[in-house]
Amino acid sequence: MVDILHRIGIEGMAPETVYTAIATKEGVAAWWIGDTTGDDAEGGILDFGADIKARVIELRPHERVDWEVVEGPDEWIGTHITFDIRQDDGWTIVLLGHRGWAEPVEFMHHCSTKWAVFILSLKQFLETGTGTPTPLDLHVDNWS
Amino acid sequence: MVDILHRIGIEGMAPETVYTAIATKEGVAAWWIGDTTGDDAEGGILDFGADIKARVIELRPHERVDWEVVEGPDEWIGTHITFDIRQDDGWTIVLLGHRGWAEPVEFMHHCSTKWAVFILSLKQFLETGTGTPTPLDLHVDNWS
Repeated sequence: MVDILHRIGIEGMAPETVYTAIATKEGVAAWWIGDTTGDDAEGGILDFGADIKARVIELRPHERVDWEVVEGPDEWIGTHITFDIRQDDGWTIVLLGHRGWAEPVEFMHHCSTKWAVFILSLKQFLETGTGTPTPLDLHVDNWS
Repeated sequence: MVDILHRIGIEGMAPETVYTAIATKEGVAAWWIGDTTGDDAEGGILDFGADIKARVIELRPHERVDWEVVEGPDEWIGTHITFDIRQDDGWTIVLLGHRGWAEPVEFMHHCSTKWAVFILSLKQFLETGTGTPTPLDLHVDNWS
């Protein structure tokens, strides 16, 4: 099993604000996938459009969000997308994990770069009020 | 052992041009670390400034570059930074690996996001002639 891992920080921002941008569908729609719908409560199914759906496994307010992918690309099924939020010297830090890939296939390389694009879109959304969710996201290669 | 992996593509560009931007110190200085110096021949030591040095392990023209870190952050010593270049339907694809981390420490999360920033700087340099090497790089968190 291999994992995609990323880290961003937002200076002088309350963890509550960062958590809300990750744990609610309205938040996710502002930085990852623009047409995110579904049930963002624990146990609910989030629909990210583009045939990606995930179950909300854990919501620990202001600290952790854990989704398990239940529909999507074959390589994504059963993987977990996790967000750990904590304070560090006046910054709020977000650790992103996309965990449990069976193999480090080339598609995982692509998704790793795309997750960086999206987690930096989260940072930009929190800092400026405007993110670049799909379909506004930067295309990194021929898989978009 | 865990690896950082990324993928970018540049449309309609010869692999030779992409390879030169990765395999030469002048190329690296345009997208990763602005004051890269040293010996970029196979067996040579590249000096990336900021106390990071790497030995050039392999140069396979237009296909592969492999550096082994010999000086730098503790977690980097002995890791390999690899670039695999290939053609895919009119695109030149670059697979970046920063391979052989002992543990998926928080610093690795940070470096994964920073490698995305830099490999996208390589893409931008190749497409526009201007990259954002250190110290022009996007800061992703409190570790910069």
